Formats: sequence, structure tokens, C-alpha cells
Amino acid sequence: MNSEFINENDLVFLVLDDRRKWLIKAKSGEEFHTDRGIIYFNDLIGKPYGSVIFSKPYETQGYKFCVLRPLPSDYILHMKRKTQIVYPEDAGLILIYTGISPGSKVIEAGCGSGALTCILVNYIRPDGHIYSYDISQKNIERTIKNLKKAGLQRFATVQYGDITNDNLEHNNIDSVVLDMPQPWEAIENVDHYLKLSGTIVSFSPTIEQVKKTTFSLKNHGFFDINTYELIKRKIQVKENATRPFTRMVGHTGYMTFARKIQDLQNPYREKKPFKKEYINFNGMPLRG
Amino acid sequence: MNSEFINENDLVFLVLDDRRKWLIKAKSGEEFHTDRGIIYFNDLIGKPYGSVIFSKPYETQGYKFCVLRPLPSDYILHMKRKTQIVYPEDAGLILIYTGISPGSKVIEAGCGSGALTCILVNYIRPDGHIYSYDISQKNIERTIKNLKKAGLQRFATVQYGDITNDNLEHNNIDSVVLDMPQPWEAIENVDHYLKLSGTIVSFSPTIEQVKKTTFSLKNHGFFDINTYELIKRKIQVKENATRPFTRMVGHTGYMTFARKIQDLQNPYREKKPFKKEYINFNGMPLRG
Amino acid sequence: MNSEFINENDLVFLVLDDRRKWLIKAKSGEEFHTDRGIIYFNDLIGKPYGSVIFSKPYETQGYKFCVLRPLPSDYILHMKRKTQIVYPEDAGLILIYTGISPGSKVIEAGCGSGALTCILVNYIRPDGHIYSYDISQKNIERTIKNLKKAGLQRFATVQYGDITNDNLEHNNIDSVVLDMPQPWEAIENVDHYLKLSGTIVSFSPTIEQVKKTTFSLKNHGFFDINTYELIKRKIQVKENATRPFTRMVGHTGYMTFARKIQDLQNPYREKKPFKKEYINFNGMPLRG
Amino acid sequence: MNSEFINENDLVFLVLDDRRKWLIKAKSGEEFHTDRGIIYFNDLIGKPYGSVIFSKPYETQGYKFCVLRPLPSDYILHMKRKTQIVYPEDAGLILIYTGISPGSKVIEAGCGSGALTCILVNYIRPDGHIYSYDISQKNIERTIKNLKKAGLQRFATVQYGDITNDNLEHNNIDSVVLDMPQPWEAIENVDHYLKLSGTIVSFSPTIEQVKKTTFSLKNHGFFDINTYELIKRKIQVKENATRPFTRMVGHTGYMTFARKIQDLQNPYREKKPFKKEYINFNGMPLRG
Repeated sequence: MNSEFINENDLVFLVLDDRRKWLIKAKSGEEFHTDRGIIYFNDLIGKPYGSVIFSKPYETQGYKFCVLRPLPSDYILHMKRKTQIVYPEDAGLILIYTGISPGSKVIEAGCGSGALTCILVNYIRPDGHIYSYDISQKNIERTIKNLKKAGLQRFATVQYGDITNDNLEHNNIDSVVLDMPQPWEAIENVDHYLKLSGTIVSFSPTIEQVKKTTFSLKNHGFFDINTYELIKRKIQVKENATRPFTRMVGHTGYMTFARKIQDLQNPYREKKPFKKEYINFNGMPLRG
Repeated sequence: MNSEFINENDLVFLVLDDRRKWLIKAKSGEEFHTDRGIIYFNDLIGKPYGSVIFSKPYETQGYKFCVLRPLPSDYILHMKRKTQIVYPEDAGLILIYTGISPGSKVIEAGCGSGALTCILVNYIRPDGHIYSYDISQKNIERTIKNLKKAGLQRFATVQYGDITNDNLEHNNIDSVVLDMPQPWEAIENVDHYLKLSGTIVSFSPTIEQVKKTTFSLKNHGFFDINTYELIKRKIQVKENATRPFTRMVGHTGYMTFARKIQDLQNPYREKKPFKKEYINFNGMPLRG
Repeated sequence: MNSEFINENDLVFLVLDDRRKWLIKAKSGEEFHTDRGIIYFNDLIGKPYGSVIFSKPYETQGYKFCVLRPLPSDYILHMKRKTQIVYPEDAGLILIYTGISPGSKVIEAGCGSGALTCILVNYIRPDGHIYSYDISQKNIERTIKNLKKAGLQRFATVQYGDITNDNLEHNNIDSVVLDMPQPWEAIENVDHYLKLSGTIVSFSPTIEQVKKTTFSLKNHGFFDINTYELIKRKIQVKENATRPFTRMVGHTGYMTFARKIQDLQNPYREKKPFKKEYINFNGMPLRG
Repeated sequence: MNSEFINENDLVFLVLDDRRKWLIKAKSGEEFHTDRGIIYFNDLIGKPYGSVIFSKPYETQGYKFCVLRPLPSDYILHMKRKTQIVYPEDAGLILIYTGISPGSKVIEAGCGSGALTCILVNYIRPDGHIYSYDISQKNIERTIKNLKKAGLQRFATVQYGDITNDNLEHNNIDSVVLDMPQPWEAIENVDHYLKLSGTIVSFSPTIEQVKKTTFSLKNHGFFDINTYELIKRKIQVKENATRPFTRMVGHTGYMTFARKIQDLQNPYREKKPFKKEYINFNGMPLRG
């Protein structure tokens, strides 16, 4: 993935301008047709990423295209998809607040079209693994296809599974990522799969989902439960016309984070001062 | 870093409540004093992360503390620091939009107190490397100390260096992260260090910095130059009192992203239709 | 209120700097003590608003104070108050979206400390009237005191009244402003008081209040029901340090607006195409 | 304007649904064609505002239309216009922070299409006046037409005038509203027209305009100079799908407010402690 030069079958990010960008596989001998002329992949292969190439004359002209190595955000926004997607800023916050990083073992449910899966896989390499579940065969197929396209399939296992009902037979999972309509129904199972100090995040567009998920997390003894949303502003930078852009996404979704901690018995659940008789000489609770 | 159990000298994240959290090294035989009693590290060592322990009775009571494995965001917010810091949401967007990920070779200037350095190092493991420069010896020392504390020092080289003037003798760098007062003065050098298709991000609190940096990026032929800011809202989730929190950080900073592309000569710089006579039979410009 | 010169007993807005501002009555022969010296009201009276005066030497120095005519926003932020207040930006949106303006007859419930009452009264002058109700005698007293202080009491009637239960014996009211914990319980009564095409606004900090109020408005046949919130950013403008301020109010509250329309019978309630048999030759419904 | 019943030639706000709304004059004997049938104004005249009427059958059906009394925000958003407009939330903040209210004498430059003029006129009634200037005859004509449509023309004088150059021969003006490309060039003149304690607001989309205007206000001795922007979020309220709307206006513009104060000589300009020798026995400066 980090080679300097474009190889056959590499996924490249072809950019004409702000509106015309493609995530596409460089197949030897094949071509890609745009409304600004044809790109012959043989013109790309062997060149360094970051090269500028020209489309074969459309009528009498060629257009300049940049051939970039795709970034995670390019995966998200330019994949063929049919489901709502996680935005780059949300994916970034999920990484930081869950701690998903190289080596992490992660459960994802559901996988949607695989945009977030591709991001996560990129960051758990080379020793981590993503176990991705969905109850839609179409989503599973799309995700596998997108992972293959990105050459990342060996770091992920994508399969059918209902995290709210099935025993998925995991344990010691570092993080769980829920991107599903009823995340609160998954909390009980998630609790079994996660290791202590493991993290969970649920991404939901509505406040009702956030409430149900938060209360379920509380009931299952999760700790440090916090919900955030991000508003991203793009700034127009011009000599005498600097200002935020007029159009902006008003809401992507809420992210609810929590951590699993040791399950003490009820009297010790509350963060109130601990009564003397419950403490033994080591400062540890006698029952708990 | 991913062991299940707390070892001697591990960095642990000790949490009493929302306001009282500490990032601290578990030193065998030593203790940590809080206003809610004493934590004896020997009580922690050998326990799994995520355990709940009790402070030694303060007067007649013990208090419940959670001992968590520190997340990247815990590093950022609970380090001893004297400089402005990059917030978790901004660090996340930087990861996603620069593509900094396992294996990346990254230049960072300056390192500040090392909060962002620790985050970046966490994500380029195990094969990448962060080359971090600063012109303040105090910042360099603080960053090295914080990296050591986190056990991440072998993935980073932190040293004195002025990216605006010195020849730092890098090439084929994947990404450059600028967190310095005059980022625009660094662009010319950065251009030499970056590989084609490599990314740059500059984090700046003021709009004047954004403008100068953007214009410098344009002048040096960078591509896909975009500036964003993130507004993070924390949501209070309660049965009958769900609402955004009253207090909120109004502005962390702007992030300006760009990508390096092949440097064509002037006539080919513009995204205008390419005249026929400049195209040879391979679709490549005859002069360029 | 619009005289050019400060008269005895006028309410003046005394400003030392951004943090030290007072809304205060200019009482002849009296004085006002600050940590930057004493203001003698006789120094103010007879001067034009907008004058700069100096405190009597505190030790050996005097400090510059501006004496301004108070604006509505000064009333809101510098009144003595014990309840949550409506912020200036929210008060402004309420004016525009309810259409409360000179001549309007308005019911307000509850009055809180009278900050919003003072704003509304200022804008319905000289021919409108505010009927303000509260179930707390303290709030009523505070509001009356604040109105008197501002010299606006003749445009308002502030009295005890429970809008959810009492028959307040109003009709043909132009607008109703609800600033109370359970606004949804007031909708049925409000419906009787409002004239056709009249407007209602409810200000609530939580999303649960918004939901209950919205559903009650729908059930009572209100039209054009919309909920908004405003985020106000203050910008620091400096030669080389222009940026939004770091600190910002994260949430003031939600405002739900609606309009009263004619109450047609059920078959005509829905905005769906009207069946032929229900239309007479004039295009008006036969029953409705 | 506040009559209960729709009279001939009244401006009415005709609403079919969220996307189909018209601000239109009820002309006796005339009709209005929509894609959902014809509205005969004779069906409206004499009915109370807030009535529901039906379009004359389009093929075999009639559609329900609400006939509302237009609110200020309806004027803003549904006027025929060709220039950028001030949004309702911004108009509201301008009212509150300038103190423009019944009785105010106000200069507006420029008038654009008159949307803000109509709002302001509505709130200075019945004793105030708006003096509105523009350097575009088209804007002046549009504004006069819109004021007449709203029946508000007697409270405003709209005429050609260049506030940056012409002597407009005003004094003792309460507030000045600048909505023009180069507001900073108007500050010197505005200073002459405003009375002491009078207010100025400038509405500008870009940060460069804000900076130049702010520095000009400072140079001319204005006080309490503050810049704000408002972000308005619309909330979707549904039983199980409550959330901010996905689409949102990202930026309307910045509003810079200031107040005119007494012009003391230079040594007294600064807010620093005043030296003893400059104070006479009354606490007033000897020179100033």
C-alpha cells in the first residue's frame, strides 16, 4: 500500500476537479471513460503516485488529471454505497476515543457498505483484526468487495451475524463499533465480548437512539459514557473573501462512547463514599 | 501496550470522576496521594486494566477509582503541558485527511508538549516513524519525556530543528504536520521532503495564519487545498433533560490540508483544456 | 426613554470595561461605589448619554467610565436575576418569528425575572400590551421591579396566573410566549386565547420538552411548527490574531414556533388532495 | 396592519406546504394560479387571517391553502429579490443589539431589495423613521415597491445616496445599519450622523470586511466593538427520529456592533488609570 509507484491493479484516486473524482483500479490494458476524455491505465502504471496525466483527446483536447494514492477519507466519500455513511471527522473521533490503533481486535456491527470498515482496517494493521457483522447479505458483499478493492481484505473477516441475538464467540475484544438502527439491543452481548478497559462506540443519527443506548450502557455497568457530535465547517480562503462556506452538513450523527470496567456488586456501583464496614484492611471491599 | 494486565511501570489512567483523572506510572512500592485518599500501586499491579480499586481510607472511608488503559485522547488531555494542544477531534481529522497510518513516515514541526506526537506515533506503529522537530529545547525535552512515559519513544525521533531554515535531509516523507506559529514559512522546505501524493496539514488558531499558509501552498503548486474547523458538542443525556452541554469550546483551530503533485511547467498548471499541439501520441504533454 | 440627556432617576448603563458593567438608576445626590472609585450621580445628570465620566479618585487616580443608554441586550444580561434567562439572540429570533412588534397583544408565561418581559415590552410600545403570568410571587415581584426600573411598567400587566389551569380570560391575542418547565400543558388554553393567524413560541432547554410541546401543538391543529436553536459565536478581531473566541455558550435552548389556523373538521385536516364530493361549486368544503 | 380580517389589497401569506409559500396582494376580482389549482382572491377577502381555503379544482380536486398574516420573517424570505439577504436570526440580533425599537431614527445603507428595511420599519413604528440609502436605482425602486406592498412606506424614506461620500445631512440618529460591500469607508460619515450613545451595526459576509470595519471603528473612537455570527439549526422533531436537519446554512454573515461615545482627547482615550494632575476637583478631566 505504501509503494511509491502505481502498480497494476492498484486502487488509485483520479481527480479532475472538486466535483469529478474517482476511486478506481488501474487495470493493465484497460481504459476509463470520463466526460473529459479517456484515461488509459497503461499511462498510469509505473508512474509515481502524485503524477499528473492527461486524458486522451476528447475531440481535440486533453484534460489534466491528478493520480493520487487514496486516503482513508477518499475511501469514505467515493465508494459506491447505498447506505448512510460515517463522515471523515466522525471516523477520526471514533479512532481517537475508542483507541482503535495498530494491533486492535475490533468488532463492527453492521458493516454498511464497508466505508468505515476500510478506515478501521487501515488503522489496525498489521497485527489487528476487524470482525465485521451485518444481517444484510448485500452489505456483506459490498463490504468484502470494497475491502478487496482496497487490498485490505486479509485484516478483516466480514460475515453474517446478528450481534443482538447470535453468540459470535468472541472475547478479549479491544473495541466494539456499533453502526446499526438499534444499538441498545446489542449492549448485553457486547459486554461479553469486550475485555476489561475495552471501549465501545455507537454511531446514531437520532437522539432517541442515543438515549436508549446510553441507558442500556448504564444498566450494564459501563463507565465514562459520553455522547458527542461534530460540526465540520469548511472555510473559503480567498484574498478578500475569506469566510465559512455557505452550504454545510447540518448533522451527521451522534457518537456515544463508553468503557467496560470490572463489575462490582450493586452497593459498590455508585461513586459515593464507601462505608467503612464494607472495606477490609487492604482498602478493598469485603463483598463486591 | 496491549497486555491485559497492569505491569510495573505501565502508564495507567486513574479515574475518580469526570473532573479527577490522572495519567500516571504504576511504580512498584510507591503510592499516589489524592484528595480522596491514597492509591498504593501495589494494589494495581497484576490486576487487569478496567479494574476498580479503592483508595486507602481517607479518615474512615475509601473511594472507588477505575484503572483504565490510557487512550490517545487521555494522553492529549491529561499530559502535563504548557502549550496549546491539539484537541482529540482535530487529531482524528488530521489522521483521516492526511492518511497518516501504520507505516507512515511523518515530519512534525513543532512538537509542542508532545501530545499530538504521542497520538501520531500510536498510529504509525510498528513500521512507521515520526521525525519531530522544535526550536525550543523545553518542548523537545517535554515531548521525549511524554513519549517515554507512554513507552512509544522508539517510533519517534525528537530533535532540535528549524523547518523553515535548516536542511533536515529527509525525502520521500508521507506526511508533514505543521503546528507552529508561521507555517507558511515552512512550505518551501516541506515541498522537498514530501513524496509525490504526500500530504501536509497545518494547524493554526487564527485566520491570518490560514490565509498565509494557503497562499504559500498554492504558490508551491500544492493540490486539493482545503481548510476546516471542527466544533465538538457534548450532549447531556438524561431521562427528561437531554440537551447539549451549556459550556463548550468555541474554537480550537483551523486545519489546512493539501497534497503534493507533480510539478508541471506553467502552461500545464491550469486546469484548462489542453491544446492539441501539446499532446503527443501517448497523451502526455510534449513539454511539461 | 429616548431623551438625549440623562435625567434624574433614569436607568443608565455604566461601563468600565468588558467585565465591569452596571445597569443602575441615576439618583440625584447619591453615589455608586466600585472597585475603581466612586461615581457621583450628580456628575452624570444633565450630561448626554454616551458621555465619558471619571470616578472620584481612588487613592490618587480616577478611572474612565462610559455612561450609555441601556439597550435591550443590556437589560437581559445585567439585570439582577435568579432564573435562567433568554439570551439576546434568542430574544431577537422570537421577535422576528412571532411577529411581536408595535401594537401586539402578547401573553407571556412565565415571566422569570422579567428580562424577556422588558425586551418584549420595548417592542410592542406604544399601543401593544404584555400580559405576563407566573406562579411564583417572587418572579412576579422581580419582574415588576425590573419593569419599573426600566420605566416600562405601563405597557405590561404582570400577575399571578397558571396558564395550564386558570381561565385567564383573554382572546384575540397576537402571540403567546411560553418560558416555563411544562409548556405542553399550556397549549390547550393558549389555543383559546390566540386569534387566528396568531403565533406561539415556546422556549425550552431540553429536547424532551420540545418533543412534548411539538406533539401537543400538532394535536391542537397548529400549523407551521418549527424548532430552532441558535449558536452564537463571538469573533476576536485583531491584526494578526482573528479567530472565534475560545469560550462559547454551547446551548441556550430550543425555540418552537407555530401558528394558529382555522380548525377544519378531520377529513380536511390533512394536506392531501381533497376529494371531489367534499367540494362545492365554489371550491369550498361542504362540511368543514 | 393588525386588523383581524383580510381586506382588499392586503398583503397575505399563502401557504400550501413547506416549499410552496407566496407573499401576495389580495386584489379583488383577481386570481392567483398555482400548480395546485387557482386561488380566487374574492374567496379570501373578508375572511379572518388564519383561514383555510381551497384552490379551485385542478382537474377534479381542490387543495388546502392557509392564508396567514405575513410575519417579518415571511417578508425576508419570500420577497422577490436579487441581492443577498439578511436572515431572520441576523435581523433579530440586529434589533436587540442596536436597540432599534419604536421611535428610533435609523439610517440604513444600502437597502438591497428592502427585506431588512421592511423588518426595521416594522419595529420603529409608529414614531420612528428609516432613512434608507443606496447607490443602485434598481435597489431603491425594489425597496420602495416592497415597502408599498407591505403598506409600510410612510415610515421610511428611500433615496439615492452614497454614505461614504455624500453629506446626507442627518444628526441625532439613533442607529446606523450598514449592509454594503465597503462599510469601513462609511464610518467617518456615520460618526457625524449618530447621536452620543447611538449604535452602529455592519453586516458583512467576509472576515476581511469585518477587520477593516473594526479597525475603522476603533480609529474613530467607537466603543464596545463586538463581532458575532449566528449559526441556526433547525431540529426535526419526530417520535423516534429527533435530530438536527441534515442540511443547514453554513454561514450567513458577520455582524459588527459598536456604540458612539464622547470624543475625549488622546491622552484620555485609553482605558488606563487616569493621572492625578489631569483630574480637577470634580473628577472631570481638565483637558478632554
